[in-house]
Amino acid sequence: MKRLTGTTKEISELLYQEQLELSKDNRDVDDVVRQILEDVKKNGDQALRKYSETFDKISLDDFEVGSDLIDQAFATIDADVLEALKRAKANIESYHKQQLETGFEDAPSDGVIRGQLVRPIERVGVYVPGGTAAYPSSVLMNVIPAKIAGVREIIMITPPQEHFEPAILVAASLAGVDKIYQVGGAQGIAALAYGTESIPRVDKITGPGNIFVATAKKMVYGIVGIDMIAGPSEIGVIADHTANPKYVAADLLSQAEHDVRARAILVTNSKELADAVELEIEEQLKRLPREEIARASIENNGRIILAESAPAMFSLMNQVAPEHLEIAMDNAYDYLDAVENAGSVFLGHFTSEPIGDYYAGANHVLPTTSTSRFSSALGVHDFIKRIQYMQYSKAAVQAASQDITRLAYAEGLQAHAKAIEVRHD
Amino acid sequence: MKRLTGTTKEISELLYQEQLELSKDNRDVDDVVRQILEDVKKNGDQALRKYSETFDKISLDDFEVGSDLIDQAFATIDADVLEALKRAKANIESYHKQQLETGFEDAPSDGVIRGQLVRPIERVGVYVPGGTAAYPSSVLMNVIPAKIAGVREIIMITPPQEHFEPAILVAASLAGVDKIYQVGGAQGIAALAYGTESIPRVDKITGPGNIFVATAKKMVYGIVGIDMIAGPSEIGVIADHTANPKYVAADLLSQAEHDVRARAILVTNSKELADAVELEIEEQLKRLPREEIARASIENNGRIILAESAPAMFSLMNQVAPEHLEIAMDNAYDYLDAVENAGSVFLGHFTSEPIGDYYAGANHVLPTTSTSRFSSALGVHDFIKRIQYMQYSKAAVQAASQDITRLAYAEGLQAHAKAIEVRHD
Repeated sequence: MKRLTGTTKEISELLYQEQLELSKDNRDVDDVVRQILEDVKKNGDQALRKYSETFDKISLDDFEVGSDLIDQAFATIDADVLEALKRAKANIESYHKQQLETGFEDAPSDGVIRGQLVRPIERVGVYVPGGTAAYPSSVLMNVIPAKIAGVREIIMITPPQEHFEPAILVAASLAGVDKIYQVGGAQGIAALAYGTESIPRVDKITGPGNIFVATAKKMVYGIVGIDMIAGPSEIGVIADHTANPKYVAADLLSQAEHDVRARAILVTNSKELADAVELEIEEQLKRLPREEIARASIENNGRIILAESAPAMFSLMNQVAPEHLEIAMDNAYDYLDAVENAGSVFLGHFTSEPIGDYYAGANHVLPTTSTSRFSSALGVHDFIKRIQYMQYSKAAVQAASQDITRLAYAEGLQAHAKAIEVRHD
Repeated sequence: MKRLTGTTKEISELLYQEQLELSKDNRDVDDVVRQILEDVKKNGDQALRKYSETFDKISLDDFEVGSDLIDQAFATIDADVLEALKRAKANIESYHKQQLETGFEDAPSDGVIRGQLVRPIERVGVYVPGGTAAYPSSVLMNVIPAKIAGVREIIMITPPQEHFEPAILVAASLAGVDKIYQVGGAQGIAALAYGTESIPRVDKITGPGNIFVATAKKMVYGIVGIDMIAGPSEIGVIADHTANPKYVAADLLSQAEHDVRARAILVTNSKELADAVELEIEEQLKRLPREEIARASIENNGRIILAESAPAMFSLMNQVAPEHLEIAMDNAYDYLDAVENAGSVFLGHFTSEPIGDYYAGANHVLPTTSTSRFSSALGVHDFIKRIQYMQYSKAAVQAASQDITRLAYAEGLQAHAKAIEVRHD
């Protein structure tokens, strides 16, 4: 792991520059994706079939994944995995139900009513990657909050495959997906955004994908809503002398194994711990099946930062604004107040980050590359809209009329003023 | 106004195609904006000074708008406008305080704590256009929700001008802006996103602007948060035979005067009303100072749709998903349940849309071009982040361990499983 030294200000500037690098666009991909989007918008299913043959080497008549395949998935899934998925689902539901919000209404003066409605988004599309990046846990995390929000129709798309991973189809069914279509990549995103003969257009698209999927999502944003543009996974660990270096190393590696671009950052005020964690990482790396990926991630993007105090540890980590934040300290809960920026926080020595990935019930779709400064974990709030409303009686509008027309005239918008004045007739 | 006819399905498809046209990108602007962003990122204040000289014809030493200019604005503003701004501010505050949310915490089983914190975004930048597009009401609408959310520092930027409109500076001061800098266009957005020697970088940027500003916001999204990409203003009116054609016409025109690209859409089940509104529009247009803009908007984008029934009116309008929705019916409040998509709803014959623009207290920064299908008015929720947290005791992680590791192994993520297993030692 690379050690960063300097003042808090210097280190935080350095981390910021590293983050900017992570956010760079790739313009070659842009052009390819733009063409695919146009093609699907214009040619619909025909374009989807063409890309399926070219990219996936599969010829498709029907895009829909039928109930026979889903029944088959339930018949073949490992029984223990099925039970684990069901328990994870229950936890995700009970956590997210707490996010449900209601509207409000007040009557601030005679003849005036004001309020806010909360409505579910009507139709949502969830992208699920193919191959080894297909995670049943991600299906649960994307679909369950939408379901709790009351979304009327949830459509899942995933690249065409000879054999679908049973756990993916089972998770989709458990979570309440209404339809599954096999179409992947930028063409899949285009189908969800514009609709085709077979696939209805949706109002919002969520779910992770490769660079083509992410670029397509960014480009259709505005036509449809999107969840976020997810970058590589990150873990930040704040640890003091009470931390167990074995645990800290294992947790750093649990993110590092995701991707060579994943970032694992340890901030500590204990040099002894820093040294011990570094030795442990080397020790544990050797025993990992995904050693190669994890090692590249640790070597390129792993960071150890020595801070002079507990406040300095939190100040630095708030700059990093990590996707996952572990506080490996005896009295971790008491430090929650010091957390300003993080997607999800794991408190104490036993709350290993994978607990959140799979099980505790909080969402694992989290803001990456420092975006937790301004955004949040996926949740029920991402699948609702707030609609404002107001009602003024004749007397109420006439009472407010002078103020409103003065402001309208001051802004040079006379028709705005006239619309009020006409109510005096 | 153009009349659209056909089945509900045909009309809604037609409206959708018109909406797609509105969402098109302009690639020439993209290239210019990309260059400006790079320049400011690299050269900071020096680049800002260069663009100020080129675009605004003003040479600047210091970008900050000092307190002397703000004092002067208070000394010169019309006293009635000042009072109107103060009353508008009070209404905006009382409405938006109802949007404040709190976190939650539960303890679903022994040794397990889960929760969600709510934190304000740390630093927000608000863009305010120059010239005739500078609206003091928009300053209030952008800044007050941020202030209520608890944002620590609110920075406003606006293009350099020989003489600032007093109401803009007064509104900024009333609303609680911390600093004002005179820098506009894409270069202003770059300054807020990357920071320069004079201007600190922010975490989120809100506020309207021209195509360069909007494109810049879209490009820096990810480095910072943004509110939305606002399109031209829209009003949808649902009216039956009880509606007053004078009022309906005046309200349609109040949006049409904003911009030749503004859209005014009337959906009614009364042919008599449709005819009467059309005559009234012609009558009122002639008396408007901004006749030329309003006429172009009405002629190009004005739409009248005859629906066969009340449910059909709402079904069509939910497809339009207008920024502003007026329900000009005797029993408007009872129809709130039928509203699925809209930014802000104005109920009954007297709730003219400008009441919401200036005064009632709900926000006037609203989702345009059909994006109310998946997004909402600007509000306190746009200036907070939700941070998840969880804590598992040793016994709790060991109890959940089998489920978690099964799922991790099923996904091929062994280091995730190991991070749990190491807690058994």
